[in-house]
Amino acid sequence: MHDFAHVLAALVAVLVSAKLLGALANRFGMPAVLGELTAGVLLGASLLGILDPHDPVMHALSELGVLILLFEIGLHTDLRSLMKVGGAASTVGLVGVALPFVLGYYVASWLGVASLPAIVSGAALTATSIGISARVLADLGQLESPEGQVVLGAAVLDDVVGLIILSVVSGLAEGGELHPLEIGRITLVAIGFVVAAVLIGGIVAPPAFRGVDKLERMGGVLGPIALAFALAMAFLADYAGSAMIIGAFAAGLVLHGTPQRTAIEKSITGLGHYLVPIFFAVVGASVDVRSLASGPILAIGGALVVVGILTKVAAGFAPWWFKGRKLLIGVAMVPRGEVGLIFAQVGLTTGVLSVQLFSAITMMVMITTFVAPPALSRMSRVTHGKPERDVSGAADLVSGPARK
Amino acid sequence: MHDFAHVLAALVAVLVSAKLLGALANRFGMPAVLGELTAGVLLGASLLGILDPHDPVMHALSELGVLILLFEIGLHTDLRSLMKVGGAASTVGLVGVALPFVLGYYVASWLGVASLPAIVSGAALTATSIGISARVLADLGQLESPEGQVVLGAAVLDDVVGLIILSVVSGLAEGGELHPLEIGRITLVAIGFVVAAVLIGGIVAPPAFRGVDKLERMGGVLGPIALAFALAMAFLADYAGSAMIIGAFAAGLVLHGTPQRTAIEKSITGLGHYLVPIFFAVVGASVDVRSLASGPILAIGGALVVVGILTKVAAGFAPWWFKGRKLLIGVAMVPRGEVGLIFAQVGLTTGVLSVQLFSAITMMVMITTFVAPPALSRMSRVTHGKPERDVSGAADLVSGPARK
Repeated sequence: MHDFAHVLAALVAVLVSAKLLGALANRFGMPAVLGELTAGVLLGASLLGILDPHDPVMHALSELGVLILLFEIGLHTDLRSLMKVGGAASTVGLVGVALPFVLGYYVASWLGVASLPAIVSGAALTATSIGISARVLADLGQLESPEGQVVLGAAVLDDVVGLIILSVVSGLAEGGELHPLEIGRITLVAIGFVVAAVLIGGIVAPPAFRGVDKLERMGGVLGPIALAFALAMAFLADYAGSAMIIGAFAAGLVLHGTPQRTAIEKSITGLGHYLVPIFFAVVGASVDVRSLASGPILAIGGALVVVGILTKVAAGFAPWWFKGRKLLIGVAMVPRGEVGLIFAQVGLTTGVLSVQLFSAITMMVMITTFVAPPALSRMSRVTHGKPERDVSGAADLVSGPARK
Repeated sequence: MHDFAHVLAALVAVLVSAKLLGALANRFGMPAVLGELTAGVLLGASLLGILDPHDPVMHALSELGVLILLFEIGLHTDLRSLMKVGGAASTVGLVGVALPFVLGYYVASWLGVASLPAIVSGAALTATSIGISARVLADLGQLESPEGQVVLGAAVLDDVVGLIILSVVSGLAEGGELHPLEIGRITLVAIGFVVAAVLIGGIVAPPAFRGVDKLERMGGVLGPIALAFALAMAFLADYAGSAMIIGAFAAGLVLHGTPQRTAIEKSITGLGHYLVPIFFAVVGASVDVRSLASGPILAIGGALVVVGILTKVAAGFAPWWFKGRKLLIGVAMVPRGEVGLIFAQVGLTTGVLSVQLFSAITMMVMITTFVAPPALSRMSRVTHGKPERDVSGAADLVSGPARK
């Protein structure tokens, strides 16, 4: 039997350090995820040795954490209004996936990384963190601006595309071939799963959750049943040959449209406060700090940071017809987070990434997340400093759908 | 690496069946815990074989569940008002521990059970379930009546005494001797731990949690830090040679007095909605249904049920000076729950109890929990049917502290 006292000790260390460092990061205008990752790096095998990411219980808790995180993101995602954001957001999103993927792959290959790990490195650069971007924009009061709406739409889109790329990469990692037909097949399974889930779920879920809602006499039924639905979808996605997180995300998309969404979101977010930091801490604990002292790994990490920043800023300028602060859009797309870390984690557990390359990618995620908030806050202050009409004038030129 | 897909499947089955059967039990006026236990019995090894209580991840989740449950009970327990309830409650509580413990031990021994398992059988009969009794009384509108207050005070007291007995029994199970000195030592450690925790914690916790409360800018910090505190106390209690649940309970007592209590309680209760049913389901899954078909085991189970009901009803009549419905008090003390199941679980994992005896004790817990709510509801209806002044007249004679 697994020694439960050791699990307790690790859980106490993870919860306290992740929450306190997360709150500290917030205090300095940084997203909490940076503090949670740092807590993991400190507790991990290469430094304090308190948190073992391979412990079966901690591993299972962190896997539950990432499924809950993707379920939350899906619950927040409104597919319909995403479609309405239209041209600018999809251009930023698609260019912001293609550029870093291709450039990241080439730069990593050029620095001597083998083909499959170079693909994973490029893929880890694709997805902007919705959570981080949305939070920083909201803090700056820019979430409702046309630029904010474009960033949100693009971030959701690149997450969906990123998750599909992840399915493909997982399929390749488990012995699939780099043959275009195989890539096409895996892509179709991932897209097909989400489409089928949204279509079938859109019919089945509302009456089912109306029934569960009626059972809710004492409270505490809706959230757990919704979680069970998300875990079941994750199981099915895995069974269908796609990634588990695709299933949890699709479950969130399905339940977004139900009248019980707010109650479910509240309960799941409460649960996520406990389990999501465990995922980030476990990712941080897998980082081998010493490997970052090696020249080649530091070079790859540094190159990924440069590619990661420049390509997303460039993507901000891609919708040439959009009359708004394109630099603000580009910089707001820079922070990588959840999905980038999930790529790195999947790469590590499937054996595609070495611990060194995994550590370089995690470093890239941390640095891109670290640089964006202060830059955005400075840019936002500069614009606020200009005469009022300058800003409102630019806003008038844009007929963004969410402009209120 | 542990196969996470299997964990997902088990979690989905446990959450859905425990929540639906729990809601169904509620619908029929029964406490949800009965549905959750039944879900576990159905999913367990002796019937469907979907939930393996020895799976390390499910085991860890259920252990977390029971620690959260005891932490919640501690958070609800107001030591000061418990002391004020005074004579009647402590008489009911102490007689209600001593009678079932002694009689349960003698009856089990008489039916051929060895000394140590007979002690555990008696001990499992001691603690009334606060959660179940409080909920049923609240449903009947009797929680604020003098009888309701006596039941609550007595139920809290017998939980505390029960937990101390559990510490002693765990110490004995781990090779301690039945020597009075050894029993005294373990009792002192358990009481000393709670007293020290309440005294030291009462000084240290308020400023610490005031600090955490200040960090709470984005939300979701207070609950996880409070959980970490409870888990740390559980670790310390284990380290000091007492039971982990004593530590979690003491942590709740300590935080009961802080201004952050309501916020902590809300967050922890939300987490408990997910994890506590897993504990009850895992307990249910450990029951071997076939073993209940054996004559001797059924005889022991039946005898424990009879002893369990009669002794608690008798305890209700112990405070002879109390002018209230003593039968109502006694019947309200009958349902066993959490603590009885924890006794059974500890007995099973330490090897003191055979699976057969464990199953008989779990059957006793389920039946005592099953019979009390309809009986209480009938008694309550009969009293309500009488002329109004009869009830209020009885209430006037009692100067209960919580009478409003």
